[in-house]
Parts: sequence; C-alpha cells; structure tokens
Amino acid sequence: MEGVAAEAASLAGHLQLSKLVCLYDDNRVTLAAATDITFSEDRALRFQAYGWQTLVVNKGNDLVALNAALKAARAETTRPTLILVRTHIGFGSPEQDSFRAHGSPLGVEDVKRTKEALGWPVDPPFLVPEAALLHFRQALIRGEQAKADWNARWRAYAEACPSLAAELEGRWRGDLPPGWDADIPVFGADSKGMATRVAGGRVMNAIAPRLPALFGGSADLDPSTYTALEGQGTFNPPNRRGDDLQGSDASGWGFSGRNLHFGVREHAMGAIVNGLAAHGGYLPFGSTFLIFSDYLRPAIRLAALMGLHVVHVYTHDSIALGEDGPTHQPVEQLASLRAIPHLSVIRPADANETAVAWKVALEARDRPVLLVLTRQNLPTLDRTLHASAEGLRRGAYSVRELRAAGAHKGAPDLILLASGSELALILKAAERLCADGLSVRCVSMPSWDLFDAQPRSYRDDVLPPGVVARLAVELGSTQGWHRYVGDAGDVLGVDGFGASAPADVLLNNYGFTIDNVVLRAQRLLAAGSKRPENLQRES
Amino acid sequence: MEGVAAEAASLAGHLQLSKLVCLYDDNRVTLAAATDITFSEDRALRFQAYGWQTLVVNKGNDLVALNAALKAARAETTRPTLILVRTHIGFGSPEQDSFRAHGSPLGVEDVKRTKEALGWPVDPPFLVPEAALLHFRQALIRGEQAKADWNARWRAYAEACPSLAAELEGRWRGDLPPGWDADIPVFGADSKGMATRVAGGRVMNAIAPRLPALFGGSADLDPSTYTALEGQGTFNPPNRRGDDLQGSDASGWGFSGRNLHFGVREHAMGAIVNGLAAHGGYLPFGSTFLIFSDYLRPAIRLAALMGLHVVHVYTHDSIALGEDGPTHQPVEQLASLRAIPHLSVIRPADANETAVAWKVALEARDRPVLLVLTRQNLPTLDRTLHASAEGLRRGAYSVRELRAAGAHKGAPDLILLASGSELALILKAAERLCADGLSVRCVSMPSWDLFDAQPRSYRDDVLPPGVVARLAVELGSTQGWHRYVGDAGDVLGVDGFGASAPADVLLNNYGFTIDNVVLRAQRLLAAGSKRPENLQRES
Repeated sequence: MEGVAAEAASLAGHLQLSKLVCLYDDNRVTLAAATDITFSEDRALRFQAYGWQTLVVNKGNDLVALNAALKAARAETTRPTLILVRTHIGFGSPEQDSFRAHGSPLGVEDVKRTKEALGWPVDPPFLVPEAALLHFRQALIRGEQAKADWNARWRAYAEACPSLAAELEGRWRGDLPPGWDADIPVFGADSKGMATRVAGGRVMNAIAPRLPALFGGSADLDPSTYTALEGQGTFNPPNRRGDDLQGSDASGWGFSGRNLHFGVREHAMGAIVNGLAAHGGYLPFGSTFLIFSDYLRPAIRLAALMGLHVVHVYTHDSIALGEDGPTHQPVEQLASLRAIPHLSVIRPADANETAVAWKVALEARDRPVLLVLTRQNLPTLDRTLHASAEGLRRGAYSVRELRAAGAHKGAPDLILLASGSELALILKAAERLCADGLSVRCVSMPSWDLFDAQPRSYRDDVLPPGVVARLAVELGSTQGWHRYVGDAGDVLGVDGFGASAPADVLLNNYGFTIDNVVLRAQRLLAAGSKRPENLQRES
Repeated sequence: MEGVAAEAASLAGHLQLSKLVCLYDDNRVTLAAATDITFSEDRALRFQAYGWQTLVVNKGNDLVALNAALKAARAETTRPTLILVRTHIGFGSPEQDSFRAHGSPLGVEDVKRTKEALGWPVDPPFLVPEAALLHFRQALIRGEQAKADWNARWRAYAEACPSLAAELEGRWRGDLPPGWDADIPVFGADSKGMATRVAGGRVMNAIAPRLPALFGGSADLDPSTYTALEGQGTFNPPNRRGDDLQGSDASGWGFSGRNLHFGVREHAMGAIVNGLAAHGGYLPFGSTFLIFSDYLRPAIRLAALMGLHVVHVYTHDSIALGEDGPTHQPVEQLASLRAIPHLSVIRPADANETAVAWKVALEARDRPVLLVLTRQNLPTLDRTLHASAEGLRRGAYSVRELRAAGAHKGAPDLILLASGSELALILKAAERLCADGLSVRCVSMPSWDLFDAQPRSYRDDVLPPGVVARLAVELGSTQGWHRYVGDAGDVLGVDGFGASAPADVLLNNYGFTIDNVVLRAQRLLAAGSKRPENLQRES
C-alpha cells in the first residue's frame, strides 16, 4: 500500500530488473483490520501494469509450489517477478487469520493450543528435532562449499583481469581511486560568479571519469540541478531504446550507463540510492530541489541510521528561487535536515566551497551527505583576500576579518555568520560596518555538524567566547542558530513561508539586504554585549 | 509517478468514489526527459487494477470526444474515472512535444511562429476575439442562474429541515456547536496514571457524539493510537461489506460512518484530511506513530501553508516506545515539525493536559495542529498541588514551584523545563533538589509555538530573565531548546538514534533518570550563573 513501493515497483518494471523477485505475503490482514476494509486492488493486475511477471501460490505452506514459483521467477530475463503467496497469519493458532496475530504475541496458553493443533510436542518449549538440526548443519557445509567455489572463481578472475579485479575490490571497500580529485577545477575570483548548482555540476563532471563508482541521477530535474554526468551514458535496458531520446545522454543507452533517471519519484530515489550503497561497489547520488527533500525524508533517515554512504544534491535552496513561490521555496528544510542524527548537511557559499563540499561528501564513507546548492549566481570569492575554501572541512571558519582603522589586533567587535548565498551579503555588510569604525569577523558556516565535530579549541578560535555580539544570517528557519549566536546575539532568517516574486524583490522584502544586516548589527551592538533579558526574544 | 497519487488512487477505488474524475494529461514528456526514459507502465491497466473506470481520448483538442468522456465519467456510479488524454505540450510551437516546453517559456520569436502555425493573428500580442468574449460573458449569465437556483434550493431545504440546515451552515463556517466540550472528562489524580494516547482516545470519544464534523482515522494503527470513534460507524461503500469485518466499528458500515480506514498510506492520509478541510464541513483528523510523520510531511506543510484546520494525532512519541527500536523511535521529529511555520505542535504531559490540547486543537480553526502522545503510562498530576492544565493553552506554564526551607519568596534558583512524559521526571528531580536546599520552578512546556505567541510579559513571568540556571529535559533532539534555556542553561535530550530495549532500560541508559537530572542541574548551578564560555557547548 505504501507509495514508495509503488514508485520503486514502477521503475523496476521499466528497467526490466529481472533479478528482482518479491514474495507478497498475502495474509489478508494488516495491523488494525482485515484488508477488506481498505484494500481491494487486483494486486496481480497492478504489477502486470508495471511490467512485472506475476505468479500465484495458493497455499503458503506448499513448499513444492513455492519452489516452482521461485524457479519460474529466476528463469524470467526481462521482468521482475511478484509471487503472490496466500498465507494465514498465526497459522494453527487460536488467532489464525486475525489482525491481533500481527501486533500481539500469543500467550502461553495459545502457544500450547497452537502446538496441539499443529501436532507438535508441547514440551519442551523450544524444541529442535534432530532431523531439523541435521538439515541446517548440511546447509553450513553447502555454504562453505559455495564460498570456496566463489573464492576460486574470484581468484581466477583476478588473475585474468588484475586491474578490473583491483578496481572492484576497491569499490567494495569504498576506496576512492588515487587521483580521483585531480581534475576538480579551482574557480577564479569573479564578482558575477556562478550558481553553486552550476559549480556542483562542473565538479561532478570533473570527478566522474576518474571515479567509476559514482552513479546516480535526479528525480526528473537534472536540467535544473546540473547533476547529469556528461558522456557517461543512460542507465536503461537496451531494448527500451525508442525514438524519443529526449533527456538521455548522447553517449549511450544501456546497463553500463551511469545516469539513472528516477522519474518523478523522490521517495523511491532515496530508497534506491540506499540500496545501491548497502549493496556496495557504488557511490550513489540522488538529486532534487531542496523543498522536495521532504518527500524522501524517511529514506534519508534510514541512510543515517544505517551509516550508508550516499550523496544527495539539493538545489534551489531558498526563497531566492523566485517565482515558483512558497510551494517550491524551502524554509524549514535546512533546520529539519540538520536535526537528523549522523547526517552531514553542507551549504557551500561559492564555487570553491562547492568543490570542497564534494570532496568532503565523497570522503565521508560512514554517513550520508547532503549538498545544498543555489539556483542563483553567487560571487566567487577572491581567496587571496579571503581564507581558503578548505576551511569548509571544519564546518565553519573565519573567512575574512575586517579591522577598523587603527585597530590592528585584539578581538573583533562583532561576528557575522552565514551559510551559502548569505556569505556574500555579510561580507558586503561587514565592509560598511568597518567603514563605520567596527572590527568585524565574517564566519562562513556551511555545516553545523562538521563544526560541532571540531575540538573545543577550534570552535573557540572561530567563535571566541568573549565576542558575544553575533549576528547569523541565513535564508531559512532560525531554529537552532541561537546555540551559535548566544543570548546576546541575533538571527536574521525566514520563519514564515516564502512568496512568489523575482528573487531580488523577495530578498528586499524579507530583509536580506546590506542595509538591514547593517541595521540589525548596529542594534545588537547598541543593546550592549550581555543582555539576560534577551533570553526571550520577540519572534 | 508520485507515490502519494498511487496511495490515494488505490483508496479512491476501494471507496468507490464515483464522483472523482481525473484527466491524465498524457503528453509523454516530463520536466527533464521523454517519459520513455523512466515510465513504461500500462497506465490504464494500473487504474483498472485499482478499481477505476478508464477512458481514452486520443486527441486532446477533440472537444467532442472530451465531452463524451466526461459524460461517461459522470454516468458511472461505483467507480472513479481516469480519462487518459493524449496531448502535445507546446502545441503548435517549435518546441511541441519537447520537455523544454515544460520548464522554459517560449521566446518572442517562438510565440510568433506558434501563432503562425496555428493560423492565429500575430498582432495584437494579446487578442481576445469578440466571439470568445461573448462566449465567456454567457458563462457569467449561466453561472448567475446556477447560483440563484442553488440558493432557492437551499432556502427550501432550510425551511424543510431547519436544524440540519443550521448544522450544515455551522459546519461550513467551521463553528464548534454549543456544548461540544461538555463531556470531556476531568481525570483524577493518579500516580499510576495512563498513557496520553489512552487519554486522547477517551477525550475524542467524549467529543465525537457532540461534534458531528469530527471525521477521520488512522493509517492502519487505530488499535495502537486509540483514535477509533466508537459507535460512529465505518466509512465504506455498503456493497463492500463482506464477511471479514475485523477492525471495523460494530455500529455500522456505510457512507455515514465517521471512521475512515486509510490503510498503510500515511502520505495519502495527510493529503485526504487536507482535502476534507479544504472542502469544508468536516473537522478531519489523521493518526499514526510520530516516527511516520516523516511520511506525510509534505502534506503537513501544505496544510500549514494553506491554513487548513486538520488535527493529527501522533503517538509512540519517543524512544520510550521500547523494543521496536530505532526505526520506530522518533528522535528529531519534534524538532523538525516545530520548524514548520504556522503549525501548532503540542506534547501534553498528562491526561488533563491532553484534554486541554484537544480543546486547543479543535478551536484552532486557522491552522493544522499536531498532538504528540505517549505509548507509556504517565502519572495524572494532582492539580490541587499543581497549576491547572489550562496553562497548556499558553504553550508553557509554571506547573509547580518548590521552595527551599526558609525561602518563601523571590526568584527560584533553578528552572526545570519539560514537555510530555518528562514533566513527571523533572517534578521528582525538583523534590530532591528542593530537599537539598534549592528553590526550583518546574515549567511544563507542551508547545513552543503557543508559548512564542504569548506577550513578552507572560513569557518573562514563566521564564524570568534573571533566572539563568535552566535545564530543559525532553526525549528528543536538543535542537532549538537553547533559545529557551540560554547560554547558562543546559538541555538533556537525545541527539543520536534510539535502541531496542524495554523502556525503563532505555530511559536509564539515555540518562532520563531522577539521579541524572539532579546531577545535571547541580553541575549547572556549580558552573555559575553566567558563563560566556558556554556559548559553545560540548555536544
């Protein structure tokens, strides 16, 4: 019934994944009810519509029929198979065919009655007959033999194709091949700059030829997310190739393609990249707009829980995407993704931070990483004037410190913090504030989780405890920023929904202007450094 | 392709919603590609499997065929209808049948060529022919007539059935009928208490007979969420009634039933309650476990954006649900739901707070409200010793203040804050701290958004700015709590994933014990009141 299963089954049928065999445990009850109350589909017909082979086993305990169905499933070469198996939950127990058998354990008395009904000895409570033990012991021997056979085949393969075998072993381990990052561009200073989605696409395409494990695509948005791997082919069954190839990669169409088109199926995309990572040998990525991360949130959470190395590329990362309006404008998504444990969320501020963010994402290995990128152009910072973008690795870093005339050392008067597109804004505001006689530190803070993982000494270097005048600026929910700006600090964010208008009109109306950042900073300083009464702020 | 559409279509077929007619704009391209790359279902067959009538119109511009199909759809009385309409995106333009026509506007030149191709005058740029104008003006007249006819029928009905008409008008307005809350129980003090999910079920069932607009159900979990409206019937087509009625309401089966079984379809549930609220006349609710709120997050967000009055009941609200383990244990869900603008999230601390929470939820009118309830029992507080549960309406309130011997007035030394199941814990810890000579205020904080909406004076009453020693205790992510506890405060939360064990073992291991709350509070006080160096905390 779950939509994610429908999305995945539809794509599996399209891709002709004939090695996929699903057994549908058709016991006619759910946790709460008989399926008759809510579910009257023709299940077989639905999967036939997806392009699946469907088989029926009328008795779930008929091992001969089950085996025959599995054999037929394995014999199929162009369709996945669904085997609909009629079963009886709580078989033989007084609760047979009851939804109570789903959620509630049988009591001692019912277990006894079940055993009696099935002709099984009531004592001892846990009985393993000798014949069953022998059967399973034989399975151990068969398994050892299968393992030995496989290892022999592998050694033969490794001798015949040593470099391919080495590549595959490296991919299984999750290693990055030597020189994988050699072609990542360094972006020159440019006040016009480029969108971080564009920079991200250039970085991915610089990496892809050297990193064969990189594999993935978008949920029908790659022309907008810039995540197509050019010249790496379209992953699709050769016999699906028709006349209309719009959107496919010109270099080829087949199962060696590395661009997977997920369709408008975000949740399945999240589940599929998880499956690829769990299988091993791939470094899978998925992509959509940041707002649509809500659709695959359960899959992101599972990746974090399972420690799966997947990369998600989420573009159009704020209300600055413009006219598409509040249904498409992420506001609380950054905060809500940052709340997921064991997940890295990185929102780079320019093209070079984007390049470093991709490096971090691919080196992470033990967790999923989300890259959050802009639709709109951002200036590419002159790194001879600003600290190196490598600072992104530590989550936050002082990117520039502007000293008031005559103030050559000591702590700054004010710290401005920003992530992503707002870094350029605070840098400009800092220049104005500096001209007014203030020493201002600008901190680029692309990732809370990477920063939180730093030692206390580094965090105190970036955000010295003595400097309590701190203003954070980010085009998203303010939730969670107070931990970094403190009681005496302030946050300029977006705590309501967006609106439909050109980006510059929106930024002006939501207060993301140099004037307003300067004003908020001045107010902060005027109110004094430590203000206990600020613990409760006006929202 | 989206899973939510599959879930909803399946349920619509089951429910035989014959008034539902969908036109499928089959233009064979998506934003990024030709559908051939990712989508090769037999669409008609899939909907037939769901129990829909399917019709085909081969030419989207054939108005006669379209009209005939719509007529056939309206004539159908037991199935929803899908009309598959073959269309051509960008019809007549140079980009006809191209995915570029989806996302990119035609330029001036292409608009000109389109008009030429369609035999339409190129100038003026916006042309409304006289015949079209007349046609639309006639539609105005027809509309006026239809409105007058409807009003006359309504007046006749209101005369014939005045009380039913008054009820319906009230429901359209979203009014609560007089006395709707008269039967809500007051729960007596009880140290054993009850789970707030159980209290919630009792409150709903006390309201339902007096509030006919209350309508909804759960995504296959009502035996666990306690959200069945007893004696209010099962919403299901009369002719679906078969032999196996497990899980249905004993009082009846038909379209007047008020218990809707959504099946294992959380996302569709979220969309359907939104649709009911947008239609009007209903006060719809949905229910599942808090962890599964991730599945319907996009629908919750839309409800908030649209200001729809829906209520969601999310139970099993923390790791204390026990053995089901981290896949079922919400951790970051509270924080991520609190981040959604225009949404009320309420986590009541005992049975009486649950009753007030339901009142707030039904009185809200202009927004969705989420009630977050426990699986495990919580003591029902003695409200002669503790402040009234009506304090919940203001989001947070001082529920008890324990004075050290001899300290009869003045500010407390310490404020402990908690929501939901952790209120009982801080109350016990406060007794120990008080015995050690401290004055401690215990604040119940079931809702951040309700509290943030209070005037500054009230917020400062509850959390006096001068009392900076504050410890918040909640079985969830600490994200966002720092705004309330301040730089000198601390938060005891869960920033990793849960684990599978009995609830008491988990609570002990995650530090949710009286001993640990006392220890954390003592550390806080020992560290002194204002500690700028605490701005960056160890995580």
